[in-house]
Amino acid sequence: MDEKLIDRTIEEIRIALESGNFEQAINALVRLHPADRAQAFSDLDNKDQAALLPGMDIPVAADLLEELEDDEAADVAITLSTELLADVLDEMEPDEAADVLGDIPPARAAEALAEMEDAEEVIPLLSYPDETAGGLMTTSYITIQPSLNASEAIDYLRQIGTDVETPYYLYVVDDEGDLVGIVGLRNLIIAQPEALVQSFMDRDVIATNAIEDQEEVARLMSRYDLTVMPVIDDRGILLGVITHDDLVDVIEAEATEDIYRLANVPDSDLSINSSVRTSVRRRLPWLFLNSITALFAAWVISNYENLFQQVALLAVFQSVVTGMGGNAATQSLAMIVRALALGEISGRATLRPLIKQVAIGIIQGIAVGVVVGLGAYLWKGNAYLGLIISLALAANIVIAAVVGTLVPLALRALNQDPALASSVLVTAVTDSGGFAIFLGLATIFLPRLT
Amino acid sequence: MDEKLIDRTIEEIRIALESGNFEQAINALVRLHPADRAQAFSDLDNKDQAALLPGMDIPVAADLLEELEDDEAADVAITLSTELLADVLDEMEPDEAADVLGDIPPARAAEALAEMEDAEEVIPLLSYPDETAGGLMTTSYITIQPSLNASEAIDYLRQIGTDVETPYYLYVVDDEGDLVGIVGLRNLIIAQPEALVQSFMDRDVIATNAIEDQEEVARLMSRYDLTVMPVIDDRGILLGVITHDDLVDVIEAEATEDIYRLANVPDSDLSINSSVRTSVRRRLPWLFLNSITALFAAWVISNYENLFQQVALLAVFQSVVTGMGGNAATQSLAMIVRALALGEISGRATLRPLIKQVAIGIIQGIAVGVVVGLGAYLWKGNAYLGLIISLALAANIVIAAVVGTLVPLALRALNQDPALASSVLVTAVTDSGGFAIFLGLATIFLPRLT
Repeated sequence: MDEKLIDRTIEEIRIALESGNFEQAINALVRLHPADRAQAFSDLDNKDQAALLPGMDIPVAADLLEELEDDEAADVAITLSTELLADVLDEMEPDEAADVLGDIPPARAAEALAEMEDAEEVIPLLSYPDETAGGLMTTSYITIQPSLNASEAIDYLRQIGTDVETPYYLYVVDDEGDLVGIVGLRNLIIAQPEALVQSFMDRDVIATNAIEDQEEVARLMSRYDLTVMPVIDDRGILLGVITHDDLVDVIEAEATEDIYRLANVPDSDLSINSSVRTSVRRRLPWLFLNSITALFAAWVISNYENLFQQVALLAVFQSVVTGMGGNAATQSLAMIVRALALGEISGRATLRPLIKQVAIGIIQGIAVGVVVGLGAYLWKGNAYLGLIISLALAANIVIAAVVGTLVPLALRALNQDPALASSVLVTAVTDSGGFAIFLGLATIFLPRLT
Repeated sequence: MDEKLIDRTIEEIRIALESGNFEQAINALVRLHPADRAQAFSDLDNKDQAALLPGMDIPVAADLLEELEDDEAADVAITLSTELLADVLDEMEPDEAADVLGDIPPARAAEALAEMEDAEEVIPLLSYPDETAGGLMTTSYITIQPSLNASEAIDYLRQIGTDVETPYYLYVVDDEGDLVGIVGLRNLIIAQPEALVQSFMDRDVIATNAIEDQEEVARLMSRYDLTVMPVIDDRGILLGVITHDDLVDVIEAEATEDIYRLANVPDSDLSINSSVRTSVRRRLPWLFLNSITALFAAWVISNYENLFQQVALLAVFQSVVTGMGGNAATQSLAMIVRALALGEISGRATLRPLIKQVAIGIIQGIAVGVVVGLGAYLWKGNAYLGLIISLALAANIVIAAVVGTLVPLALRALNQDPALASSVLVTAVTDSGGFAIFLGLATIFLPRLT
């Protein structure tokens, strides 16, 4: 993508808008590739966006809304008149139109639906939650009957034109609407003209139920290398298809969710473009949650308060023990969370990764313990100080490996997101545990430290 | 995917292997969907894998190697005789065969290439680094000339059979091999039989250079919703195409890389299945790097060592200040790294996210500072202690927002991976800075604390 071209276009649009020349601004926008227009459009103020959109051709406006992020699309869609909004929604892919309708106030959505010509394509999509197969699917696909022959199927394709989102597969449905097979265009073209569709269709269809979670859908599509996934109901009736661009979006959204949750940002809809108010409202509760675990760790330390009056050095090194435990735990946590997300850990095989992570923890604990303990001894000249740092580090890094592995596995076993809350729980253990071990050891060795 | 079916099959294979019945074991494996066979096969010992593979039909073995992770495929491939390996490689998709050849010892690869029939399809792919467009592309695609008509193009398709990885697009190349257009099968079918390919081909081709980084390729394919991306050289000559399954793999690999790097696991090839030795070798250096920053923070504390003899309470609360700074920094860091990965921050617009994150930091800093400071005051009954905790927390959380935002942006500006080293650098600042601010404030207020 040519960032410079986009940046220049944004400048051009800004200048045109300052002199009130909307037409020139729209022309500049339209010269970009459709996929790039959204980036330039997003960069404008809401006021300018609302001023430009009604001046665009309907197909251009529809393309633009499809490319924008869902919340941005909804924000600008509600500025349109109901009539214009209905026309634009008619022109959009049904799944994208349904997303907009789901994100604007219900009253506006109802008005727009009443005005739409193709409302019946969109209405079935509105009933599924966003993060399910039904929420991802589109109704823009081609069905044929199994009793057609190849030549009739090709004639049918010629009739219905090119305006379909999934043009390379034909879905074969029987009279009841049951999905019975799939035909790729490649096979249709090389089939004998008089061969029946049912004789060369692929009957080994991988389909998903409309209420399946989007993460599982993405896993299936990626596992079986599918560009399109048909969606059926409990009776096997074809309801829609999920296209590969949705697969990519889901994979990216799920990765964002994991990265965010490991970093105590609980809401994956949050982005650097979210308002300060929204960001604080979502992020602050998790900082408060972390405060509680931090204060609990402080309470652990306070039980050893009189130690510091005798050996102030302990205050210098206690955080090394907890910090290194946290780092080691984060390593295990990230690897387990990622393995769970990619489906690399199956139900029966949770013991093996645990044993491996503990073995890694033992080796890393001993290595870090010896090196850092020796460093502390050389620095402060107190062998017993070095010894308790070594022991505490080794113990805490082993604990870190255990909890960093067990917590996400346990959350998954409880049907919770393994990434959510993992780092809070793990930090609580490595912090409080680390302080208790280090200061407890110091109490035992106190006569040698003073 | 039916995990239970896979688990049952693994059991069946194990039992068959115990009684030395290789044929039964292979039959059980082959009853699974090709995409599921790899999971069952991976679960076997290397010895059993090596025993089973030569007994499989060549196409089954080829499918299996395609589905295995690259390193696993290479490990089992080298157990084959050179002749059998060459046959299997001939049957594989050229890009997957090239991956195997790149991962086995060069001498074995040269022997296998010499025996292969289709070596000329694979050899051009061997010269590109794994993580470039050239490293991802396959040579299995269909080219046609612009001067053919639609009917001739369809006849040509009938001739060449179905064994092509990218069957839904035809690449139009001129006599020099330049990519001049693309024709989707949908448009070919509905074109008039005598219409020339050049009259209905899509000339607005988005292609990528063979040396382009895979992350950028994935961004382009995802931005323009491409299922296939042609790869050209500097002169515009078509070299290969990248298919959507590679896009999915790259997106997942890049997300893994970011999650790992934020967690101080520098090597995204590492997985929970990696050996303990490899895991420790890759992870331990980053723990040692973290040790250095932890010891630096300890040195900062050691400058205030005599404080603790007078006010032991400081040792109780100092980690709260640094811990909360670390948590706040991690939130900003994750959001900026993710925004950079998804291309949401363009070159010119780095000031806006910085200002936003700082604003969020100020609000969160004040909120956490007031609440936790008040809590400490109520707990320990010392108002000045509460005050310095409040001030230090607020200051450290603001610093956290600034460095959590600036460090990844700066790394990107220096053409470094924004995720790598970010958390080490950021932790170093929030730890050392947090201790210095808290203990510095305590020094100032010392008379009020004792």
